[in-house]
Amino acid sequence: MYFGNAWYPEHWPEERWPEDVRLMRDLGMNVCRIAEFAWSTMEPIEGHYRLDWLERAVDLLHRNGIAVVLGTPTAAPPAWLTHRYPETLTILPNGRPMQHGNRCHGSPNSPVFVKYSRLIVEQMARRFGKDERVIGWQIDNEYGHADYSEEARRQFHAFLKERYGSLEALNEAWATAYWSQSYDNWEEIPLPIGPHNPGLMLDFRRFVTHTWRRFQKVQVDTIRAYARPEQWITSNYMGWYEDFDHYLLAEDLDMVSWDWYIGTGHHDYLTTGALHDLTRGLKRRNFWVMETQPGSVNWASVNNVLYRGEARVMAFHAVAHGADALLYWQWRAAPGGQEQLHGCLIGADGKPRPFYEEAKEIGADFAKVSDVLRNTEVRNEVAILHSYDARWAVNFQRHHRDFDPVNYLYQWYRPLASRQIGADVLRPEAELAGYRVVIAPALMVLSEEVVQNLVTYVARGGLLVLTPRCGQRDIHNRLYPYLQPGPLREIAGVEVEEYYALDEEVPVKVALGDVLEGQGRIWAERLRPLSDRTEILGHYGVSNGWLDGRPALTWHPHESGGGVLYVGAWLEETLQKALTDWLVSRAHLQTSYHDVPEGVEVAKRVAPDNSRTLYFVINHTRRSHTLPMRTPLRPPLTDLISGVRFDESIHLAPYAVHLFEVR
Amino acid sequence: MYFGNAWYPEHWPEERWPEDVRLMRDLGMNVCRIAEFAWSTMEPIEGHYRLDWLERAVDLLHRNGIAVVLGTPTAAPPAWLTHRYPETLTILPNGRPMQHGNRCHGSPNSPVFVKYSRLIVEQMARRFGKDERVIGWQIDNEYGHADYSEEARRQFHAFLKERYGSLEALNEAWATAYWSQSYDNWEEIPLPIGPHNPGLMLDFRRFVTHTWRRFQKVQVDTIRAYARPEQWITSNYMGWYEDFDHYLLAEDLDMVSWDWYIGTGHHDYLTTGALHDLTRGLKRRNFWVMETQPGSVNWASVNNVLYRGEARVMAFHAVAHGADALLYWQWRAAPGGQEQLHGCLIGADGKPRPFYEEAKEIGADFAKVSDVLRNTEVRNEVAILHSYDARWAVNFQRHHRDFDPVNYLYQWYRPLASRQIGADVLRPEAELAGYRVVIAPALMVLSEEVVQNLVTYVARGGLLVLTPRCGQRDIHNRLYPYLQPGPLREIAGVEVEEYYALDEEVPVKVALGDVLEGQGRIWAERLRPLSDRTEILGHYGVSNGWLDGRPALTWHPHESGGGVLYVGAWLEETLQKALTDWLVSRAHLQTSYHDVPEGVEVAKRVAPDNSRTLYFVINHTRRSHTLPMRTPLRPPLTDLISGVRFDESIHLAPYAVHLFEVR
Amino acid sequence: MYFGNAWYPEHWPEERWPEDVRLMRDLGMNVCRIAEFAWSTMEPIEGHYRLDWLERAVDLLHRNGIAVVLGTPTAAPPAWLTHRYPETLTILPNGRPMQHGNRCHGSPNSPVFVKYSRLIVEQMARRFGKDERVIGWQIDNEYGHADYSEEARRQFHAFLKERYGSLEALNEAWATAYWSQSYDNWEEIPLPIGPHNPGLMLDFRRFVTHTWRRFQKVQVDTIRAYARPEQWITSNYMGWYEDFDHYLLAEDLDMVSWDWYIGTGHHDYLTTGALHDLTRGLKRRNFWVMETQPGSVNWASVNNVLYRGEARVMAFHAVAHGADALLYWQWRAAPGGQEQLHGCLIGADGKPRPFYEEAKEIGADFAKVSDVLRNTEVRNEVAILHSYDARWAVNFQRHHRDFDPVNYLYQWYRPLASRQIGADVLRPEAELAGYRVVIAPALMVLSEEVVQNLVTYVARGGLLVLTPRCGQRDIHNRLYPYLQPGPLREIAGVEVEEYYALDEEVPVKVALGDVLEGQGRIWAERLRPLSDRTEILGHYGVSNGWLDGRPALTWHPHESGGGVLYVGAWLEETLQKALTDWLVSRAHLQTSYHDVPEGVEVAKRVAPDNSRTLYFVINHTRRSHTLPMRTPLRPPLTDLISGVRFDESIHLAPYAVHLFEVR
Repeated sequence: MYFGNAWYPEHWPEERWPEDVRLMRDLGMNVCRIAEFAWSTMEPIEGHYRLDWLERAVDLLHRNGIAVVLGTPTAAPPAWLTHRYPETLTILPNGRPMQHGNRCHGSPNSPVFVKYSRLIVEQMARRFGKDERVIGWQIDNEYGHADYSEEARRQFHAFLKERYGSLEALNEAWATAYWSQSYDNWEEIPLPIGPHNPGLMLDFRRFVTHTWRRFQKVQVDTIRAYARPEQWITSNYMGWYEDFDHYLLAEDLDMVSWDWYIGTGHHDYLTTGALHDLTRGLKRRNFWVMETQPGSVNWASVNNVLYRGEARVMAFHAVAHGADALLYWQWRAAPGGQEQLHGCLIGADGKPRPFYEEAKEIGADFAKVSDVLRNTEVRNEVAILHSYDARWAVNFQRHHRDFDPVNYLYQWYRPLASRQIGADVLRPEAELAGYRVVIAPALMVLSEEVVQNLVTYVARGGLLVLTPRCGQRDIHNRLYPYLQPGPLREIAGVEVEEYYALDEEVPVKVALGDVLEGQGRIWAERLRPLSDRTEILGHYGVSNGWLDGRPALTWHPHESGGGVLYVGAWLEETLQKALTDWLVSRAHLQTSYHDVPEGVEVAKRVAPDNSRTLYFVINHTRRSHTLPMRTPLRPPLTDLISGVRFDESIHLAPYAVHLFEVR
Repeated sequence: MYFGNAWYPEHWPEERWPEDVRLMRDLGMNVCRIAEFAWSTMEPIEGHYRLDWLERAVDLLHRNGIAVVLGTPTAAPPAWLTHRYPETLTILPNGRPMQHGNRCHGSPNSPVFVKYSRLIVEQMARRFGKDERVIGWQIDNEYGHADYSEEARRQFHAFLKERYGSLEALNEAWATAYWSQSYDNWEEIPLPIGPHNPGLMLDFRRFVTHTWRRFQKVQVDTIRAYARPEQWITSNYMGWYEDFDHYLLAEDLDMVSWDWYIGTGHHDYLTTGALHDLTRGLKRRNFWVMETQPGSVNWASVNNVLYRGEARVMAFHAVAHGADALLYWQWRAAPGGQEQLHGCLIGADGKPRPFYEEAKEIGADFAKVSDVLRNTEVRNEVAILHSYDARWAVNFQRHHRDFDPVNYLYQWYRPLASRQIGADVLRPEAELAGYRVVIAPALMVLSEEVVQNLVTYVARGGLLVLTPRCGQRDIHNRLYPYLQPGPLREIAGVEVEEYYALDEEVPVKVALGDVLEGQGRIWAERLRPLSDRTEILGHYGVSNGWLDGRPALTWHPHESGGGVLYVGAWLEETLQKALTDWLVSRAHLQTSYHDVPEGVEVAKRVAPDNSRTLYFVINHTRRSHTLPMRTPLRPPLTDLISGVRFDESIHLAPYAVHLFEVR
Repeated sequence: MYFGNAWYPEHWPEERWPEDVRLMRDLGMNVCRIAEFAWSTMEPIEGHYRLDWLERAVDLLHRNGIAVVLGTPTAAPPAWLTHRYPETLTILPNGRPMQHGNRCHGSPNSPVFVKYSRLIVEQMARRFGKDERVIGWQIDNEYGHADYSEEARRQFHAFLKERYGSLEALNEAWATAYWSQSYDNWEEIPLPIGPHNPGLMLDFRRFVTHTWRRFQKVQVDTIRAYARPEQWITSNYMGWYEDFDHYLLAEDLDMVSWDWYIGTGHHDYLTTGALHDLTRGLKRRNFWVMETQPGSVNWASVNNVLYRGEARVMAFHAVAHGADALLYWQWRAAPGGQEQLHGCLIGADGKPRPFYEEAKEIGADFAKVSDVLRNTEVRNEVAILHSYDARWAVNFQRHHRDFDPVNYLYQWYRPLASRQIGADVLRPEAELAGYRVVIAPALMVLSEEVVQNLVTYVARGGLLVLTPRCGQRDIHNRLYPYLQPGPLREIAGVEVEEYYALDEEVPVKVALGDVLEGQGRIWAERLRPLSDRTEILGHYGVSNGWLDGRPALTWHPHESGGGVLYVGAWLEETLQKALTDWLVSRAHLQTSYHDVPEGVEVAKRVAPDNSRTLYFVINHTRRSHTLPMRTPLRPPLTDLISGVRFDESIHLAPYAVHLFEVR
């Protein structure tokens, strides 16, 4: 377990450094990220590199028992570079170059920018690649936006040539007979600004992905050429940020990390859990929280501070979902610059801010449980599929303004989480063997590989959940020449006669336990069973005349023991919960703990050999609760954090966190 | 009566065509619009025209009894054109050219674009101008936006030179002594972006009108040079769309059509009737609904589907207001492209969608009543004046954000429509003889021709209604050097001492039947009678101190038997209804039917020789109603659609439509 | 006392002028502003000046007893200038030049524009500088926005060179090590568009100030070279408008004036008083209301008219706060142009509009009290500090979207005003001797001079109020290396452990008279006393865990008899009122009159020798009130406006204004 911060020693006179590092050690910190954004300090003049100061910082940290992660500084190109080579500036959709002085103004499409990025990274890698004090590298920082330059357009053309081979194939894929869009010259193809041909838009997002992957790969390869094998390479991604396909970029990294910020308001574990699970799913292994807010941020509309105790709860929540490290951003705010008011641990006066107190508790707690958590991992029986292709395609054409694909994923995630059933968030190409339930929320775009993956999964006895908008498009974002769920119709045993964006709620009648009727909202599909074996689990009541009495939910059992549940409507909460109960029962899903009070999470990490299970009991509320003890938490049990032994029931103080080891 | 669709055969392999046409015939369709947007298919390479496929499509339709309307494809210039001749691209107000891949990116101000447009239209006209299978032509598609290029600016200067002759005259007309705006060189005059001199802004809208009229005329003339006389020429306009003066463009067409879309929500016959009446008024003859939604659209914030039965009600509502054709857009969505999710009749699987069922009922119903409706027309006793000059001028300077001139027109239209009193929506220059009542809502800009027209109308015994904001400006959008209603003060017998945009409602006291007091909102004018004969019908209660006790409504009777009602305030619904009653009574207006339940419309079409009247009884609600039979619907009567005979009262099922012929 | 209007004789034929001037005289007007915006009339062709018409207008006014103020026309450069010298056009942040036809399109950064501005002003000054009929000059009109041209960027670099001497100093001041912002070449420095480095943003506002000051100074110097000493020079500013530092520009003027517009809604004397006080504070002397609305404006979302009587109340309210003149804008609207619908005194028909009637009453009233008010001035015991540096800095980084620094100033102003305690609004560098209380709302940025000023003030026995966000930054907008209130910690006896933008209200417990508890909102600071003498006046209740039980309000008495009140939270109204009571009591503040009904203002002006005090009793409501007579308004007293004598109590009719002289 790592606990640490992001430090910018270049903002401060060197005589201050020892005091900062002393305070980090006082907090129980054992890792520190540095060098990110320090390009102009490392290369103040073109070709003149100054890394001695960095080595001194690395050394100081090391001597205090703090491991170092080096960030490459390419998100902050220096003024001499963009001034001398203005072609390195990213062009905005309005045709104007970005200005120096914010971040990410260097274009990944600019060969000159890539060259200078490679050179500075090479200097760092030569100096620190063999350094035992440096445990890993972070590439750039929170990248992803597109460049709309003419150079980017030329590269887009080359990308498309490579992808399609001929304009005939491209015209066919994008259905360009429509609106005379046909291209007879690669150079005619625009970079899409605003709504455009859905095939072109999807390929543009793939091009942006390709561009950033190439940019990241240049840095990975440069570092790897010098680095000892133990140094890992990561980058810090941003949760649901969708400008590129994170699954593809993660392939070139050793580990994934992400930056977890709340902004205005407070932590909601029923949804933020999904963000950790998403990140864990990028490489299907534990991850780092590379940045998180020490109380508050500075960029939200209201930059409120987390409640006292909330950050500690968040820290353990992250660990419970697979985080092996947590770093606060940042150590101390520079006296100037855009983030003067961002939360940090050290005040303008160089002394601890109030939040420091809570960080110190977290550091102490982490130290207590670090050994017992080593090498443990998260295992779930449910997978929720998440595809950038499908998200992009839905967001290009929401059809109902409220059809937000992430919200729809939450629609499935939240009732599972509130029943203490964890889920992995995975790309649809992922190996699905071993999952009892696989849910594919709004998986609108399918590839042949994904179709085969899902067919195989069901054939092997898996329970697949399909939902509104599944299987409408092929990989070119082109309508399949059959009804939804397209190539999955056969295994689903049902097809969609028509879909309806709803301006009014529609009644849905079911027989799911005690629940007999509820409402669909935002979206409803009129289903038609394709097989005698298809069971109708629900149908629509009287509404717009088209849906009245038609099937809304179907279950198609397979001989494998598996089957496909098709859910035709976006259901309101009561129905969605009842459906979750049906799933739990049908698939014999195991919950971490039964009958847990609202707002309390029981999550677990498991040793690879299954010899031990670690139970995190987290009270995400500011009220007290009591949890009766029963399997798997049979008394007596001792909380590894507080050392308190529980013999009958577990008292949960506000924001309490307990960790129990069960063998 | 025509019933049909828009088909894009170029999106599909030719072997599919027969099945599509078979299904059209199955729906009872007898017209199909094709070729719109097919430029890149008709001219895939500059100067190489390929029309054989189009001829085969025309022939296939013809052989199945379906008449053809050809759309010219100029709303979708091909990529080779805009790439080779970038000066053909429309320039946006931000100075950037439009991108290829959406529509309407060709500039009507570009001589090159006009030339290539003419050439492709000429090819089509040569090939199909004498073709018996083609009954008419549609020019381009939904045009109207402005080009902000330097070329457009030069043409604007030429337009102004032609209009004013000298800069002295222009400076005088625009009152440019104000803010040192005076021009001493034509080249100094800008294209207005954002708020600008109201005279310049008005002339710019006239220039845009001029530009599109010229563009349309090039195509009309090109077609006419080859077409047999029976082929008519139209274009598809967009209801209240206001970027150009539709009256002027309609002059060069044989017939007008429009595209009727609801977007989010549902049909409100009390306002959509006005849209049909507007379109009918463009040429004062029956019109086509060239496009309407088969259930839903794809561009609204919520693309809900119409209720089952609602489209049929809408179809007959359009016919009752003078539509002689109704075409669904579109037949089938292309597999790709921006409108993949737009409503259509055929699904992605090539088979009928649920809406097809309702379209088939409409097709069958149209077939039953087609003969009896032939050559019948709509006749009304009320005209509502609608002027683009005035609408533009009010919208340039609303003065109260809620003073929407179209909403204010509805303010007059709705209470008439709910009393089954139809209205023609006409330009103020139209011949007004024969109307019992003429209403001029917010007719802010007047020409001498219009003044003379209204004076003559009243002199011949007509009842003219003037309202807030009438007669404030001359044709240069310049304040008249006298008070409102300017040159109509004398016939009005009243003038406006002051106008007030209202931040609070103001009481209005009247004696209109039972109604004694109500509220004015948005706007109120303080009136001063100019004649002893002027009667005060209402005055303001205590409000802002300026209006207290002052006249609000006046009636100025003329010796001709006619007179002028001046309404000084935007009245809330109760007062507006009471005033409508006063008008009905004063002008002896005839209603189509008395005491009709709310939501039911009784409208009529009449044979030219008055020998027959066709009564449409339309239940626009989802509830049942009963209509007692009395004059003019005396029993027994047989519904021409259902064949049912009514002997005592007419039962109206939800969304029922009946058609009765009365001789 | 001056009463007048803005007249644009160049809009009208000369034969109309005598009638206009006759009507002005009929209104009791004695001043008229002309020539503003008349550049194209004065110089219709480059270098050909025509001022005879202007001289005739001046003469006509003079002969009718109306003094003339001449406006320089540089806010409306003529088309020939911007067309021939396009480099004179201001460049917008989007990189596009402004268009001719609105105003303020000439760039103060363009040497060519400055040259032509100087030439036209010189012509005017030569002609009218010695003219007895002209009493003063107004420079340009409502200027302030920035030019984003390359020329402006070069001048910004020169400005920074002058300010910092070296890039080392600049990099240090802006803390550019952050995000690799360091500059090694002056040319690299951008003009900030959107959020940027806070130091750079603050200096850019100073550069804009510098630019406009230079532009204004060119005109001031040009006029002064020719003008007789009695002619004063002013410019018309815009209240809270914040694009430049008004204190610096005011230094070069003889007198300040401002344009007072309400827009939508009505006058709220508890806040508009602060606008007058702000303007009076710019030079610490009486001022002019150079423009105000004759009923309504034309640019608001709802351009409602003031209530009958409201304008008269506003006029006397302005005088009570130090206005020595009030001019209505404008006399008559031009027949065309963007402001056709703006309120004015003369209608489109050339005759008085209804508002004229009220203006005439005001004119008569002013005439009655002009002598008695001559040379009287406003004196207050409270100063509220207002700094453009601090306002800019807070607005750059509000941290809570609702932390509007002007609203926060009102937070202090309103409860004082409603207790009839006047306040001066002053720059923090102002001499503060003589004030009993000085309030520094959100004075985030401090200079050494200001620190010294406040320290001296307290040392001399003054009571200083510090608030949230005081003293966080130095003049480079850089965080002080100590906690808030930075260099004022010692005199405050308290420091801010942490600040909290609030997403929820927080309880604040106090003992201020009867008030024991209230709420803080938007912002709260956790205070730590630094001295035994610091008294805790309030602390926080249970909220976010960080603030619970911590000090919220402290009072640090000094031996001088003065002291510092530190208010840590933005308090809701009840608490703020209670705190105002505490201040009144602690500092023995005198109110103009006790126990005044809500909505009634009692304000005063005093003769320089204290021999006479003029009491304005203004009923800002539309209801009647009664004011008992007591010190200082002891019976009997005669209202100088109405001539009515009061013997027991003062009856206040709706919108009544009385003026009493007490010796």
